[in-house]
Amino acid sequence: MKSDMKKHPVIKNIKQIGQSRLFTIEQLDLEFSNGERAVFERIKANAGKAVMVAAITDKQEILLVREYAAGTERYELQLPKGIVEKAEQSEQAANRELAEETGYAAENLKILQTLRVSPGYFNHETDLVLATGLYEQKLDTGDEPEELEVIKYPLADINRLLQRDDFSESRSIAGVLLVIRSLD
Amino acid sequence: MKSDMKKHPVIKNIKQIGQSRLFTIEQLDLEFSNGERAVFERIKANAGKAVMVAAITDKQEILLVREYAAGTERYELQLPKGIVEKAEQSEQAANRELAEETGYAAENLKILQTLRVSPGYFNHETDLVLATGLYEQKLDTGDEPEELEVIKYPLADINRLLQRDDFSESRSIAGVLLVIRSLD
Repeated sequence: MKSDMKKHPVIKNIKQIGQSRLFTIEQLDLEFSNGERAVFERIKANAGKAVMVAAITDKQEILLVREYAAGTERYELQLPKGIVEKAEQSEQAANRELAEETGYAAENLKILQTLRVSPGYFNHETDLVLATGLYEQKLDTGDEPEELEVIKYPLADINRLLQRDDFSESRSIAGVLLVIRSLD
Repeated sequence: MKSDMKKHPVIKNIKQIGQSRLFTIEQLDLEFSNGERAVFERIKANAGKAVMVAAITDKQEILLVREYAAGTERYELQLPKGIVEKAEQSEQAANRELAEETGYAAENLKILQTLRVSPGYFNHETDLVLATGLYEQKLDTGDEPEELEVIKYPLADINRLLQRDDFSESRSIAGVLLVIRSLD
């Protein structure tokens, strides 16, 4: 069967089975095109689309932030990221988050592609934004419990970065590798 | 402050605020080392660790599966993946999932690294396993509502794959790019 011809399952019912400030858990009753029925679960993020910023300095370093992660209960290295607010474009949101998290803004912002996280369970999209032409611009959010540590990592040392156990977040790894390919 | 010296926040309280068959939502009261208090949410997957398999044929193709994703409500291309069952090693789980989803097993299995998904919100780990020396071995799970479509994608065409909107899952992108680097 041709890929684009495949008939989607029909969602017969959606039930909300859990909710918090940030997340909603839903249960879906599905009927596949072969007649099979199945019950799937998924999680909706109550916030909207996200951006992740690959900001490259003139010295060919990439900006990373080191932040406490409640899921793993430890500090993790990631690309700067955040939620796109209403009335913002992804490029604007990227520049705002970059300034809030790293103290830099960018002259040039370009969406490279949209990344998803476990699409079987989440509908969440993250636009990966390449940021160049950096200049200092501190923007205080007031909503961070502690200041983030900012690390300028040389792109030439990327193999060393990829071996770090605290640099394991899939979007950040995909982002760094995609940006390196786009710069080559 | 040196990265590895940073004092972790203290978890003052954990409250379960939502639960389903697959997921548990928790609310954490945290006290950071600077004395600031904050309330974070996180999601625990009730299942354990996952594996994701980068299986490379003798013709330098990578095996992809096309599967309905309830989060995005469409078919998505991803690397074969699944949960590591009790008493399984990650390599065994990778070979079982590969056979169940693609009809191939591998003579050589090697864990390349551990990937995480949004560590701020999830504790979930996925071992990326390189599989080579493939041979046909169909294993029926009996628990899939429909047969998965298997695609052999030439590694030489990877730029075309990365441009596909239905190949956007961060772990799969990270997995493919990490495997290409490991083969270079």
